[in-house]
Amino acid sequence: MLVVPLIERKRDGGVLSPEEWSALVAEYTAGRIPDYQMSALLMAVLLKGLDRQELATLTDAMLASGQRLSFDGWATPRIDKHSTGGVGDKVSLVLAPLVAACGVAVPMMSGRGLGHTGGTLDKLEAIPGFRTALSLAEAKAQVQKIGCAMIGQTPEIAPADKRLYALRDVTGTVEAIPLIAASIMSKKLAEGLSGLVLDVKHGSGAFLPKTADGLELARTMIALGEDRGCPTVALLTAMDRPLGRACGNALETEEAILALRGEGPPDLLEVTYALGVEMLIAAGIEKTSTRARKRLETAIGSGLAAEKFEQIIEAQGGNPKVVEDPSVLPQADAVEIFAAPETGVVTRVEPRTIGRAVVALGGGRTQVEDAVNPTVGFVITVKPGDKVLAGEPIASVFAKDAAGIQAGFDALTRAISIGAKLAAPPLPLVSHRVTSAGVEELTPRPRGPARRAVRRG
Amino acid sequence: MLVVPLIERKRDGGVLSPEEWSALVAEYTAGRIPDYQMSALLMAVLLKGLDRQELATLTDAMLASGQRLSFDGWATPRIDKHSTGGVGDKVSLVLAPLVAACGVAVPMMSGRGLGHTGGTLDKLEAIPGFRTALSLAEAKAQVQKIGCAMIGQTPEIAPADKRLYALRDVTGTVEAIPLIAASIMSKKLAEGLSGLVLDVKHGSGAFLPKTADGLELARTMIALGEDRGCPTVALLTAMDRPLGRACGNALETEEAILALRGEGPPDLLEVTYALGVEMLIAAGIEKTSTRARKRLETAIGSGLAAEKFEQIIEAQGGNPKVVEDPSVLPQADAVEIFAAPETGVVTRVEPRTIGRAVVALGGGRTQVEDAVNPTVGFVITVKPGDKVLAGEPIASVFAKDAAGIQAGFDALTRAISIGAKLAAPPLPLVSHRVTSAGVEELTPRPRGPARRAVRRG
Repeated sequence: MLVVPLIERKRDGGVLSPEEWSALVAEYTAGRIPDYQMSALLMAVLLKGLDRQELATLTDAMLASGQRLSFDGWATPRIDKHSTGGVGDKVSLVLAPLVAACGVAVPMMSGRGLGHTGGTLDKLEAIPGFRTALSLAEAKAQVQKIGCAMIGQTPEIAPADKRLYALRDVTGTVEAIPLIAASIMSKKLAEGLSGLVLDVKHGSGAFLPKTADGLELARTMIALGEDRGCPTVALLTAMDRPLGRACGNALETEEAILALRGEGPPDLLEVTYALGVEMLIAAGIEKTSTRARKRLETAIGSGLAAEKFEQIIEAQGGNPKVVEDPSVLPQADAVEIFAAPETGVVTRVEPRTIGRAVVALGGGRTQVEDAVNPTVGFVITVKPGDKVLAGEPIASVFAKDAAGIQAGFDALTRAISIGAKLAAPPLPLVSHRVTSAGVEELTPRPRGPARRAVRRG
Repeated sequence: MLVVPLIERKRDGGVLSPEEWSALVAEYTAGRIPDYQMSALLMAVLLKGLDRQELATLTDAMLASGQRLSFDGWATPRIDKHSTGGVGDKVSLVLAPLVAACGVAVPMMSGRGLGHTGGTLDKLEAIPGFRTALSLAEAKAQVQKIGCAMIGQTPEIAPADKRLYALRDVTGTVEAIPLIAASIMSKKLAEGLSGLVLDVKHGSGAFLPKTADGLELARTMIALGEDRGCPTVALLTAMDRPLGRACGNALETEEAILALRGEGPPDLLEVTYALGVEMLIAAGIEKTSTRARKRLETAIGSGLAAEKFEQIIEAQGGNPKVVEDPSVLPQADAVEIFAAPETGVVTRVEPRTIGRAVVALGGGRTQVEDAVNPTVGFVITVKPGDKVLAGEPIASVFAKDAAGIQAGFDALTRAISIGAKLAAPPLPLVSHRVTSAGVEELTPRPRGPARRAVRRG
């Protein structure tokens, strides 16, 4: 096919037809369009955008490039959650078993660490023996048996996305809202869901730091989901500081297990509950957020949520004892405590600096083939707004040696600022709820968000 | 080197440093940056532009990727002409010998047909035996001996441009003014010139049809030339209809030979004289355009210009008899006359349609490795504004068979419109003169342009 005229049309602000997008995706996936043409087209898309019809066709073509999970004839509602990625974001590890314990099927397909952010698969694989590379058939059987499977993108799902994503990663074309939306939704729509809940991060540690961009991405993904018969709702959540206390694979898995027992840090539980409420409502299991929240709290309080996680771990070859005894997780060789360098108020805990430091310690990848050291990372016990005294312990560094400890200290020194007072309040943990009806701005409350204003979007 | 952050910065409207541009060009030319990264960067450059410093560094880096002709210690002024390309544009074949016959050295490096436009090399190679692939050393020796060489881009000249150009051609990144300017100037500045005259085409058959874009390209190239010690001037000339009558390689070579004898079509002679005047003035051979014009006319009238072309042909292995007897050029197997389909005024002769038809007849390439049939093409004897009678011969088609004749007729039917009167006057043959001092708009006159207004640019 003649690709140059299509690149030129998009470059000049024009629109490609559904047939043209389908052919582009199919020919590229088959290796008949060279990377250098596709990367020029992707850059033109990033700078000129896609209209709604183009985005829909692109997403459908990526979805059609692979297989789909089918739960035809199975009555249990199936809901997944997707996060756009952050630092310390171990919500999936808590949420999937928690919601499954409430009677909703969760066929969860997650990713690995990317850039400065961690990935659910890497965290799960910190559990000795845990296997994330299930086939689609295995995943389906497990979902139908125990209500949840936590897997990676299989080769059968959206292979076009896999190729396009790898190309975008090395050509400066990651940060395009329509391309991000098409990539996420082409995978999620292959899961045979009855509903989808999106956790869109904003703030300095998010891939799209601006709130307006987060809202735009949320609206774009919701339109794609709803148009394809998958009810979709999004929450905008804070990523101007790490979520919870632990950052690093095994450390986050441990914190997730604590949360499943009701002992997790309040911010992690808050975000998990907010997303869980949306999942139960989307599943039709509960009608109101108050009742849904109650049901989630009960699943944790009763131990059913932790038990569900044990079942999942066992089904996927991991050591289920980890839930009772997190010390079966691999432990770092070197641990040191980091003290507040001065007295004052914590004004900033920069998530991007922390996330990059975890990667530098060996807890993430700079090349696709890198192995990940699950033990390294940070536990940071302060949040912006907290008062600290000079010399008070505020964090721990987990590393493989003394050099790592020093690098970790350097990162904490850069990431954590202490001053007289906060320059601006941190972002509300859960700030916006976006549905096909519009955007609601939420007021943060200790227990569950209440609505302040409704704006139609 | 890390290319992605540089792509991202350009994509976001930022500026790359001289060191970054130099490294990008050097690493890409050495094969250490993949095409897919460079094409994404080129698309970002096309859509976001380059500032003056970036453009200068890019041009210098492309120039520095190869060798340069050096005429150190040789007093003869060396002037070249470059055209941005058009249909029927055989000016170089007339101008190079003509100006050389006036005592100016012309080290002319030309290209092949590109898209719908013809190329000087293809036209020269229509002459039996003519060799355009001289080495730099051969070209220099010939210029010093007979005052002119007409050659192709040698492998020694700007290899970075060669690679970048090939990539732009297949990635929709040709039409970027800074990239066009850098490509042209990196080659021209390698010729060791004392001055450069640019023929920037505008109108529907030009690569940049808009006058404003042509002026912008002219100003950009002039700034690059002047900053590097090469005085540069540009004329904007009309490409809203083919130049002259012949379109197609051997047909154009024949027309160029007629022009060298003073028998060429008036529009071709007019553009040739206008550019020749600038070349003689740039060389310091004449001070006024009236005197320069006179000198050019004398060189043609005396037969010296035609004789110079014979010398060039002989020096480059071609059959010099062609100047006396153009029938030694290869002849088309099939020739048919095309008659005006109706009575009226010619309102349009669309150069792009004609240029594409020449390629379709076999006179140009759709793949780099295609052989070119020199015999095919058109001779169109009418211009917009001419009155014609139904049935009157207005063009001839030269093809290799009856199918070609039919295709040629179809193209002429599409390209030539006849109506009651001109909707708008055609572009003046030579409409603007651009120098580092600004833009002069010129009034077309039968003999030599007079100045109407001066705008500083």
